[in-house]
Amino acid sequence: MPWTSTNRIYAKPSNTESVEGPAGGGPSGARAVPTAAADSGGRFELADHGYGKSSVKLLHVHRDGDYHTIREFEVSTELKLASESAYVLGDNKEVVATDSQKNTVYLLAKKHGVKTPEEFGAVVVNHFLYMYKQVVEAKCRVEEYPWERLQAGVPHNHAFVFSPTATRWCEVSQTRHEAVVVKSGLSNLRVLKTTQSAFVDFVQDEYTTLADAAERIFSTVVEAEWTYDSMRTANFDNAWLTVKDAILDKFAGPPDTGVYSPSVQHTLYQAEKVVLEKVSEINWIKMTMPNKHYLNIDMSKFPANVTKGDPRHHIYQPIDKPAGLIYAQLRRRPKSRL
Amino acid sequence: MPWTSTNRIYAKPSNTESVEGPAGGGPSGARAVPTAAADSGGRFELADHGYGKSSVKLLHVHRDGDYHTIREFEVSTELKLASESAYVLGDNKEVVATDSQKNTVYLLAKKHGVKTPEEFGAVVVNHFLYMYKQVVEAKCRVEEYPWERLQAGVPHNHAFVFSPTATRWCEVSQTRHEAVVVKSGLSNLRVLKTTQSAFVDFVQDEYTTLADAAERIFSTVVEAEWTYDSMRTANFDNAWLTVKDAILDKFAGPPDTGVYSPSVQHTLYQAEKVVLEKVSEINWIKMTMPNKHYLNIDMSKFPANVTKGDPRHHIYQPIDKPAGLIYAQLRRRPKSRL
Amino acid sequence: MPWTSTNRIYAKPSNTESVEGPAGGGPSGARAVPTAAADSGGRFELADHGYGKSSVKLLHVHRDGDYHTIREFEVSTELKLASESAYVLGDNKEVVATDSQKNTVYLLAKKHGVKTPEEFGAVVVNHFLYMYKQVVEAKCRVEEYPWERLQAGVPHNHAFVFSPTATRWCEVSQTRHEAVVVKSGLSNLRVLKTTQSAFVDFVQDEYTTLADAAERIFSTVVEAEWTYDSMRTANFDNAWLTVKDAILDKFAGPPDTGVYSPSVQHTLYQAEKVVLEKVSEINWIKMTMPNKHYLNIDMSKFPANVTKGDPRHHIYQPIDKPAGLIYAQLRRRPKSRL
Amino acid sequence: MPWTSTNRIYAKPSNTESVEGPAGGGPSGARAVPTAAADSGGRFELADHGYGKSSVKLLHVHRDGDYHTIREFEVSTELKLASESAYVLGDNKEVVATDSQKNTVYLLAKKHGVKTPEEFGAVVVNHFLYMYKQVVEAKCRVEEYPWERLQAGVPHNHAFVFSPTATRWCEVSQTRHEAVVVKSGLSNLRVLKTTQSAFVDFVQDEYTTLADAAERIFSTVVEAEWTYDSMRTANFDNAWLTVKDAILDKFAGPPDTGVYSPSVQHTLYQAEKVVLEKVSEINWIKMTMPNKHYLNIDMSKFPANVTKGDPRHHIYQPIDKPAGLIYAQLRRRPKSRL
Repeated sequence: MPWTSTNRIYAKPSNTESVEGPAGGGPSGARAVPTAAADSGGRFELADHGYGKSSVKLLHVHRDGDYHTIREFEVSTELKLASESAYVLGDNKEVVATDSQKNTVYLLAKKHGVKTPEEFGAVVVNHFLYMYKQVVEAKCRVEEYPWERLQAGVPHNHAFVFSPTATRWCEVSQTRHEAVVVKSGLSNLRVLKTTQSAFVDFVQDEYTTLADAAERIFSTVVEAEWTYDSMRTANFDNAWLTVKDAILDKFAGPPDTGVYSPSVQHTLYQAEKVVLEKVSEINWIKMTMPNKHYLNIDMSKFPANVTKGDPRHHIYQPIDKPAGLIYAQLRRRPKSRL
Repeated sequence: MPWTSTNRIYAKPSNTESVEGPAGGGPSGARAVPTAAADSGGRFELADHGYGKSSVKLLHVHRDGDYHTIREFEVSTELKLASESAYVLGDNKEVVATDSQKNTVYLLAKKHGVKTPEEFGAVVVNHFLYMYKQVVEAKCRVEEYPWERLQAGVPHNHAFVFSPTATRWCEVSQTRHEAVVVKSGLSNLRVLKTTQSAFVDFVQDEYTTLADAAERIFSTVVEAEWTYDSMRTANFDNAWLTVKDAILDKFAGPPDTGVYSPSVQHTLYQAEKVVLEKVSEINWIKMTMPNKHYLNIDMSKFPANVTKGDPRHHIYQPIDKPAGLIYAQLRRRPKSRL
Repeated sequence: MPWTSTNRIYAKPSNTESVEGPAGGGPSGARAVPTAAADSGGRFELADHGYGKSSVKLLHVHRDGDYHTIREFEVSTELKLASESAYVLGDNKEVVATDSQKNTVYLLAKKHGVKTPEEFGAVVVNHFLYMYKQVVEAKCRVEEYPWERLQAGVPHNHAFVFSPTATRWCEVSQTRHEAVVVKSGLSNLRVLKTTQSAFVDFVQDEYTTLADAAERIFSTVVEAEWTYDSMRTANFDNAWLTVKDAILDKFAGPPDTGVYSPSVQHTLYQAEKVVLEKVSEINWIKMTMPNKHYLNIDMSKFPANVTKGDPRHHIYQPIDKPAGLIYAQLRRRPKSRL
Repeated sequence: MPWTSTNRIYAKPSNTESVEGPAGGGPSGARAVPTAAADSGGRFELADHGYGKSSVKLLHVHRDGDYHTIREFEVSTELKLASESAYVLGDNKEVVATDSQKNTVYLLAKKHGVKTPEEFGAVVVNHFLYMYKQVVEAKCRVEEYPWERLQAGVPHNHAFVFSPTATRWCEVSQTRHEAVVVKSGLSNLRVLKTTQSAFVDFVQDEYTTLADAAERIFSTVVEAEWTYDSMRTANFDNAWLTVKDAILDKFAGPPDTGVYSPSVQHTLYQAEKVVLEKVSEINWIKMTMPNKHYLNIDMSKFPANVTKGDPRHHIYQPIDKPAGLIYAQLRRRPKSRL
């Protein structure tokens, strides 16, 4: 009889005993066929697999006398085992439990502290590869909560406020016998400017209703991610702040005049270029800048007596969906191709 | 046959024609029974009703030469009509469409600008009562998006960044022939301190497993709301900043030593008291301070070799759910009761 | 010096020692002034207060042989103490810790099971009033997760699927020496119909741009809440399903012809009326039905060759914000007023 | 002077005029260097780029006499242009505006209807490649809202209820001169079973505190995605329902006895294998099954009198974070490797 928790009709449950018997049941025979390929008579194979713990929440407090420093994170770990037998046979003997991975995150943070998300991620993946020979690849994602120290003229010794202007994250991975790979990211940096933005001279055809706009609101929520050439030479805190600064600079321009943006595409490219120019350890950077639309309101539909007012007041309708979607990845060219 | 979009069984649909016929169909007879009480043969009555438009998104730009100022809002409006006939008869002749209410929000913002959320809310409710005699009560809720002007030594003329450290909102309402009532609020102000917080000497019984904590992390996400004595004398921007400041002050204390908190309850009360002392136009203030728990991690379960490390590193597990939940409302006592 | 985590200026932190000294410091003197009124020299008073634990997550499994039944909840508890000293003095000696309240929820669920959210809420508030004489009022909110048993022709003995068509919740409260008060609710029931909905003959003035619509999409996300006359006679499961059924019935009408809706207001009122007619234990019911707009797309802006197609295809643009907002509360009239 | 909207210090804004002058300003010289490589003096190059419209909301109603059928979607489109000049020069002359892409989605839906998400996605990408020779690749993502027809014994002609048991989505892409590529997905299918799940015999070391569990709650929120061998032979609706069915079948097993799960890994693999066996057009399938933990509550901390109760009641604590995280991708082996 079919499965249904609703009015749809589902197929008949398979006779699970006979299908799963060899794998789940008879261990002696099963141990001879520990891969998906063998288990499926050569028809299928595992292309990728991994398992771990996601969203391990962690507050690190560094107490240096009366002066305390905090960093709060959500950490995710992931291991890839050499063997497929956990999937194919349900055999857990090489499985480092996800609960143990969670414990490990806390214990490594206790032992080493968390200097930067990137360096902590490297400690975690190194640990798993060193401890467990059955692990062929380890990954660690770290997302930081944007706490800031309170200030009252002087900085407060131990009180902090949540200031989510932008979120910092990184993903660190390592395959056995290879170097650590670090990707860092910045997300949710939302900006808006009220002039120095246009969009003109685009394709006009029968699908077009948008008119040229020589002056428009420009607002976006920036996402950026980039990789480092080398774990050893990078200054991760400085790089992150430099990326954030480059975006703000190329978006806003000088405080008095601003900078003209002919399109989101062009502003995005300008910001990427200055990052590669300023941070030599960064291999490539990808930015995504949705175009968050603010529409003019058509006042011509109303009689003059209800629309007149101070001409300095301008009203726009912010639109959540849809949004434009613009991205590009800029990378250094290999020397040989110069 | 019963309704079902799932496997549950619903009751039979009523024969809607005969039940609804008089109301929706024959206007002449129906017009004689325009209340819920009459329509139900005296059995039921409308206790409350209202309708409007929620989440009207609005960006106000004030362009004073090259220097631009922005405020972004979500505005909701609500009207209560004298008559119940829209509900009882489906008669819309006195209904100001919610779409027209949306238009009105944009047109009033264009005409008057948005000086503060509270003053704009008052403009909106005044307008509806003045324009439509069938309206007996009007309400307007305004929630502000936390934009901040970018700074590069000097403030930028026209570029802004989203800084959601705390959200500001207000609810303004007015009943015909009565004064405007203003409630203001602050939400999502998240803070944390790493010392000067304890919780001891509470009830210990067979349902208790929590031990006294002379030293604990204290973190909360403050919500506050308050009302004003009078629309005319209040400085709404200053009051909001004073409330925010009072909370930060009573939570954090002096930058070097901090201030001791024996419980969330006590800290909350201290912050409320200082608000009433500093802002004489505020009638009452209610604060809610959830206790966002950060748990110690029990290292005793692990052997010493995996837990040892720099003793200045402390690791806690942040807990999303459950949270403590503490609130109180403090008000001025009537003079006569002093 | 002012507080700042941003570029705003905050007021000077108060000299917290002298202000808080009497309350937090000297217990002997302080014990004589345990109210906010006394502490503030008669200027202020606590108008309301309470504390508890929010979002205690709980899965209840009833194992009757091979046949298992589950209900999953988030439970919040709240106590009001007779004394204000926890707030005013930071004195916790009468405080039942929120952690103990959490333990209590689990222990009561273990002991009594969870027959319905409403009955479990009553067990919880009874317990707190019985156990702790310092408690003058107890509240309990229960929100249920919408699990359904899987079906494969016959119901599955122990497997379930999450089916969030509508959420069920209740709030139970009790003041010492008074009866239990039960409010139940249904939220997030989202429906849509493609015909039999109109909105015509509303106010037309200079703020109006909406035209009469004799035929429109009608979609809403229903919220409903109601109270019971008596804890003892109510069948809570049946009442909740009857409310859900009444809403679907009055919204959709007969399967072949449907039922005509002249406005959201009228449909809402019809649904409330049938609930009071069918469930005699319900005192009053309040429903909220936002009008989730689906706009016609103006094809007149495009040349005919790009818009022509099968005339049975109709395309609408769903709008998230703004939405209409319609509510009413219908109650039984006191007998004396008939 | 540095940028700051907070107390952090940012780098000096570049002198944007001289840097951007050649690109944004002088068209004649700039037109000679339309690539990122040329613009950067050979140092950098665009590795990837694209732009489009995200979250175009769309309701399709098919009105066949009185019998109406609906499907609601969020559609995203993306184009890759041959030229880099929009990024490098801010030259929009080959840019099909994202607003026009939105119009196109609505117009194609009007003309062709939306038979399945996959087929509509193919219509969209074909259209963009056919219409605009400057487009080298087009993508379209379609996410469906889970509406179900109301039933009252017989199906309702025109009323629907939102039943989000699982979400269906697809991503369709096409590079010029190549075949359409279709990836389909299912997300948010949340299930739970109360027995027939164990996790034993995993690695035990000094980082381990989890004990073997011969009996545990198993709950997960399934995500699945897969690709098709060919656009032409696939029955997309049937494939999606078959995947959903396979997951429910391998998770739940027969209604009376269920099926034993030795680990999430094994259950995931079983579900993937049956999909490849049943749907020959699917090339590969990847599933992600987080292990949503439900913890036993340690009753040993409490005295017997508060824990005793009906032994059939079992209480667990659901945990939101952290969660296990298990995934694998199973694919057909190339014939040559058999």
